[in-house]
Order: sequence, then C-alpha cells, then structure tokens
Amino acid sequence: MSSHSISRRDLLATLLCACASGSFARAAATTPSKDKLTVDAARLQRTLEELSTFGRPAGASFAEGVSRVAYSDADIAGRAYVIAQMKAAGLDLRVDPAGNIIGRRAGSGHALKPILFGSHIDSVPSGGNFDGDLGSLSALEVIRRLNEERITTRHPLEVTIWSNEEGGTIGSLAVIGGLSPTILNWESNSVRIADGLRRIGGDPDRLEEARRAPGSIHCYLELHIEQGGLLDKAGVPIGVVDGIVSIDEYEVEVRGFANHAGTTPMPERRNALLAAAKIIEAVQEEVTRMPGRQVGTVGHLEVYPNTRNVIPGLVKHSIELRDLSEEKLATLGAAIQQRIPPIARETQTEISVRHVTHDPAALATPAIQREIEAAASTLGLRTLHLPSGAGHDAQVLAKVGPMGMIFVPSVAGISHSPHELSRWADCANGANVLLQTVLRMDRS
Amino acid sequence: MSSHSISRRDLLATLLCACASGSFARAAATTPSKDKLTVDAARLQRTLEELSTFGRPAGASFAEGVSRVAYSDADIAGRAYVIAQMKAAGLDLRVDPAGNIIGRRAGSGHALKPILFGSHIDSVPSGGNFDGDLGSLSALEVIRRLNEERITTRHPLEVTIWSNEEGGTIGSLAVIGGLSPTILNWESNSVRIADGLRRIGGDPDRLEEARRAPGSIHCYLELHIEQGGLLDKAGVPIGVVDGIVSIDEYEVEVRGFANHAGTTPMPERRNALLAAAKIIEAVQEEVTRMPGRQVGTVGHLEVYPNTRNVIPGLVKHSIELRDLSEEKLATLGAAIQQRIPPIARETQTEISVRHVTHDPAALATPAIQREIEAAASTLGLRTLHLPSGAGHDAQVLAKVGPMGMIFVPSVAGISHSPHELSRWADCANGANVLLQTVLRMDRS
Repeated sequence: MSSHSISRRDLLATLLCACASGSFARAAATTPSKDKLTVDAARLQRTLEELSTFGRPAGASFAEGVSRVAYSDADIAGRAYVIAQMKAAGLDLRVDPAGNIIGRRAGSGHALKPILFGSHIDSVPSGGNFDGDLGSLSALEVIRRLNEERITTRHPLEVTIWSNEEGGTIGSLAVIGGLSPTILNWESNSVRIADGLRRIGGDPDRLEEARRAPGSIHCYLELHIEQGGLLDKAGVPIGVVDGIVSIDEYEVEVRGFANHAGTTPMPERRNALLAAAKIIEAVQEEVTRMPGRQVGTVGHLEVYPNTRNVIPGLVKHSIELRDLSEEKLATLGAAIQQRIPPIARETQTEISVRHVTHDPAALATPAIQREIEAAASTLGLRTLHLPSGAGHDAQVLAKVGPMGMIFVPSVAGISHSPHELSRWADCANGANVLLQTVLRMDRS
Repeated sequence: MSSHSISRRDLLATLLCACASGSFARAAATTPSKDKLTVDAARLQRTLEELSTFGRPAGASFAEGVSRVAYSDADIAGRAYVIAQMKAAGLDLRVDPAGNIIGRRAGSGHALKPILFGSHIDSVPSGGNFDGDLGSLSALEVIRRLNEERITTRHPLEVTIWSNEEGGTIGSLAVIGGLSPTILNWESNSVRIADGLRRIGGDPDRLEEARRAPGSIHCYLELHIEQGGLLDKAGVPIGVVDGIVSIDEYEVEVRGFANHAGTTPMPERRNALLAAAKIIEAVQEEVTRMPGRQVGTVGHLEVYPNTRNVIPGLVKHSIELRDLSEEKLATLGAAIQQRIPPIARETQTEISVRHVTHDPAALATPAIQREIEAAASTLGLRTLHLPSGAGHDAQVLAKVGPMGMIFVPSVAGISHSPHELSRWADCANGANVLLQTVLRMDRS
C-alpha cells in the first residue's frame, strides 16, 4: 500500500523509541510496495532485547551491556537462540566448520550467486548490545519481512552470523582459507581457537569446507553501528562506508639502563620511559600534521622494572596507524621512524621499531555504495560517506566478492562498552536500508 | 710500627685485588701505630665472599650477585653467619625486637655513650654483594683489628646490623619508634613485616625495647658503597656524605576516555597516555632546568586498559623528586604542578596530582664529616663531598645522635644489580677510613 507516506514512517520511527509492543509497528509495516517495504522495527527491537539476555551481567538491565565473548557459555546460548529464530524463519540452516551460522533462502533465478548479509553476535568483555547484534538480527528481520510479503528474490539469500569476530574476524577468515595452524593455536578469551571452534559446533580439521572461491558470491552486505561519533555529531542517520581502513602495527622496544632513581645524576641517565614519552608525542604530531582522517594510537605500553625508585630500563609499546589509504600509512610510518634516531641519541637509549602487521584496506564496491545511497534516499534518509576505522567481517568478504556496509549512529561514538547505544529509530532506519539494498542488489 | 709507609700500603691495596690468601695482608697490617692502623683487607674480602654464598643463585659465582631479601631463608642463614662471626670477635651479642643484630664491645670510660657503626646484610632481589654487606663486615673487621691490637676505646662500641633495610629501613625505624601497626602489616618480599620480624628472632609486640632516646648515642657511622657513579667517574676513593637527600613522592592520575583506536578521530580523543607523556617530559625539563644535583624520576606507570587498539582512558604514574634541600624540592614540585593544567586542557583529560610522602633530608653532622676527611687524609686518600641520593639506615639514626657516612666508589655507578661492583682496594680504603674515624670519634 503506497499510502504509507514518508512522514508517517518518520513519525512511526519516533514513536518506536518508546514503543514496547510490536503490534502497532507490525500493522503499520504490512503491505507496502516493494521499494517502500520496511522492517518490523518493534520486532527487531524485541529480538535484540531477547538476545541481550545471553551474557547479561546478573541482575543487570539491557542498558548495562553484555559479555558474550566467543566460545563462552553465553555465546553458545546466544547462538542457539539465533539458530532457533533462523529456523523459525524457514531458513535452510547449517553451521560451517569455522562455526559460522549460515541460513539460506532459495532464489528464483537459475544458478545465480547468493547475496550474503549478516554480522556477528559475539561481544568484547563488557561490551554493548548493538555491535554485531544489530546487523545479525536485522538480517533475520529482512528474511521475515520477505516471507511475510511472499517476496521471492532472484538470487538465493544467505544470512551469515560469523563466529568470533571480536577475536580477529576468526569465522570469516575461514572463508578465504585464512585460519592457519598458528591462528588456530592462539588463545581467544582463554580458549584455544581450535578448541573454541569445536565448542560451537565447528571442526578445525575440516576448515577447507568453509572456503568460498573468489567470485562465488553476488555480494556481501553488512549493517553495523558506526562505533565512532561522526554520524551522531553530524546528525545523519545513515553512513555509506567507503571501505575498511588499512591497519599498520608496530612494536617499539626502548632499551635504556635501569638504575637507582636517587643516585644516578640526570645527565647519566638512559631513561627508557623518557624516550617512549617522546615517541608518543612524535606519533601524535606526525598523525595530526597531515590533513585527513588517519589515526594513530599508542595503546599498549609496559615499563620495566616499573618501580617508583628505579629509572625505567626497558619500555615496550605499540604503535597502531589506520587509514583508508595504504600509501598514506606508509608515508606516516616512515615519518614516525625518522623521528626515532634523534630521540635515541638524546636519551642515550637504543630503540628498535618492528613493523609487525599490515592489514590492507578493504574498499567497499562503488556500485554497492550507490545502491545504499539510493535505498536511503527512497526512505527519505540522509547519508554521509565515511571510512570504517574498525575492522569487520566485511573486510574479509571483500576478497570473495563485491562488498558494502551500512552504518547507523552510535550515541557519542561510544562502543565496546556497556554504554554503547544506538537509538531504536536509528536501528530501524539501518535495517530498512539493508532490506532495500538487498532488494536493489537482487535486481542489479 | 710506623715503618709501614703510605706507599707500601697503596701497593698492598693494589696487590690485594688478586690476593686470595689473607696471610700476607694480615702480616703486613699488624702492629702499626694507632693512627696508621688499617684493617686486614684480605680477611675483609674473605668474609664478604663467605657471606655472598647465602642467597647466591644456584651454580653461580660471586660476580653473579645475590638475592638475600629480608626474612628469606638466605637472610636467616646470612644472619646466622654474621652472628657467629660477631660472637667469635668477642662481641656481647643481642638481637633486638626489630631483628637488629647488635654486638657490643665495652669501653674504658665511665658512663660514656656508645659509638654505633654498621649497615645491613639484606639485599634487593637480584642484588649485589657490596650494598650493606661492605659496611656490615667492615664494622666487624674494625672490631677484630682493635682486638688484635688490644686497643680499648673510651666509648663502648656497638656493631649494628639493621634488619630489612631494603624494605624501607624497617629495622632502624624501630629505634625511633617508627614501626607503626600499618607498617607492620605491610608485605615485604611477600611476608607480612610483623611475621618477618618473628622469623628473624624479633618480636613485633616488644618493639618499645628497640627504641633509643635522642641523645643516647655518641654517634652513628656507616660505610656504604656510593650506588652512583660520581666517585668512580672522579677517580676519588672516599666520599664524605653531606647528608641523605629529602624525597618527595607524588602520585599522578590522568583520566581520559578509553575509546576505539580506529573509530575515534584525533581531535575527539581524550588520551590519558598522551597527557602522561607530556608530564614525563615536563618533569625532565623542570628537574634539569635548575643547576644542582636534584633528580626527578617517573619510574612507575600503569596504562588502562592497555590494549593496542584502545585509546588509553586512564594512566597512573609516580613522580619522585630528591635533593638535599627541602626548599628546592618544594620549588620543583610547585613548578611541575604548574605544568599540569595546560597539559590537561590540551589533551582534554583530568589530571590529579597527590603529594603522597615527604621524607625529610638527614644532614650528616659537620664535625663527623671533618673527622672522616681527616681520617682519609692520614691514610693518604683523597675525598669528595657528595649527597646520598639513596636512603640508608643512617638517615634514621641521625634522629638519635650525630651521624656520618663514608662512601666508596661503585664501578660505573651500578647498584641494586648483580653487576654492582666495588674494587677490593676501594673496599679496604673504606674500611680503613671507618676504623680511623671510629678511633677519632672515640677521642672527640
């Protein structure tokens, strides 16, 4: 029914913030034309609230966040909830050897490649109820609405709930054959990843079966909260992701000499922490010197022996640089490294800088970015292009086929925290854009 | 016998570096006149080497240092060795309720106050064989030489081996009634101090008996290694300590906001570690701005959550300032505090600075400093005046009576390390100056 005007939908989205019962929303969302089709926002909210109970701190409320770390009992219980919901939605369900939950809905076209969309439901310790959960349950909500409207897509649809995203996109890595024996031997939340996979129904010995050949999918779409404050600050409801940034990680080791803090004159000192302080400032200066959205962080730092009355003899710290442009990151890394020798001379220390990892940027497919914009536009929602500073399963799927990501605002940019919050109206907007983008990509 | 010339003694000291047997040295050191009297350097070396076996790492040599932390089995065994040596030297021995070992030798004078001299034999973990041990065994060697020469002093002599110096001059603190219930409840080397005192023959319930009234001693003398590099660098064998520095300790807490290192734009960050880096540099600048020997150290620093991909939200760190002048320390503390508000503004953090402890300076008694100079001069040894940047039991004893300290060089200024080293010739020089200073103080 095309009589559902945009203004009425906007009014509805506002009302849904306070609306606990889904009856009004579901009634309002029925029988629109295909390109006005929207999700049942109240049902989406209800399933997010239901999922939030798995891993919720004892006696706490929804607002107090969740600890549903991968391979934990809470993760297993949350997965069982999602699997039951997916089966109830009629999806043809399987758990692949990497523990990814995949629910398939057949398409009408002959031998067309599947459209994949989803996210993850594992959280960081003391995390929030939106990171991953929103994209996962919105994907399921898309299926429900298509069922209710008896819409059959040309392409098969696959809802994908990737395992252990927070531990380093572990589940999706298997899709490109990236789970090496080394990674399987890592610990994630105090569980060996190989053992963790077994706990959630995977099989580390059959990971080949989780692989997908490049070009084997029509596209991958993911709705996610922004995890930054750009959309919230700009007051724009939908973010069109340009790509997921490249990450360069460096490990710095500063060797000075641990000596008595009372008896060693200042000019004789070889103070490793003083050198590290100068490096931290140099990182800040170099990162903020160039225009652009690049970021640089010293987040981890250890001092030895770390006693108030001993001059620090050794400091180890990280440097992490992120930007969509790998060239810019290389320039930035070189600029920071050029700052090191004078600091070492001045502080009489030896400083080694090791480039430990380089995650390439994963650019979102321009054609999909345009479909997301068009979908938002049809729904009367403004958009903003932005990079994703955080990693996502989508960056892995970009190696298999065209990829696009939709962001919704995080209030004050807070995430990985119990205080993580996306307004229900924004969640519904995001799910609606996902639904419309799935339909558009099916036609493309 | 006055025929032992200075040049012969110098030659002897040089030879003693390589001399394992004590026979030559002992023969050479006998029967000089009282103000040419010197210790048996080879015997001093031998007892230092014997003591070093208690707490020596398994299979290691003397050069690989010692771990004889207070209240450990090694400490108890080392104390038993020293007690046996003190008894063999005819000292009237007692262990006071604070675990201090006190060996008394009667004087000839009527009701004269005792001359105290000694040091400690506990070490830091992975420490060296000179810090404390040299002063302790040199004190014992002084007694042996007086016995051999049948010299009776006017004043009673008390050799004092203070317990748990490295844990914060615990044993000597009892002498001024400073061992509060709070301190007794502290852990030192994972042992509650009250329990530790019991392990070494003390009694935390009878600490009053360890007290000495101000004015109740003639003086306290302590020979110690410098633990800094001034004497070694200057090539001067004897340091005359002006006093033990005052120490001001501050605890700094920087509160920023822990946020995602990928998604939080640089201008939005409230980076607690960046603020701490600026404070570390400010401390360095302020301490080195004024002329003088003051030192300032940020030795302890903790980052939260301390993960490479999260902007540090909280940093806690120490600032320790030391100088002989308490006024200078106050000025320096104020100068550093003035640097804080602009750093807080620039980094959008909240910074609190708490002045947690103030250890007053303990000035050495000028008359004793002159006697040490005179003793060194008689022995043909050059002297240098310097402050002690490290704390010592002598700073506590200064509250009971006149105090003086003799320093000998530490090679390269290294201490609290297995690499701590004072040359045997320097050790003998120090013990000789101690012996002569005891005799001079006895006459004064």
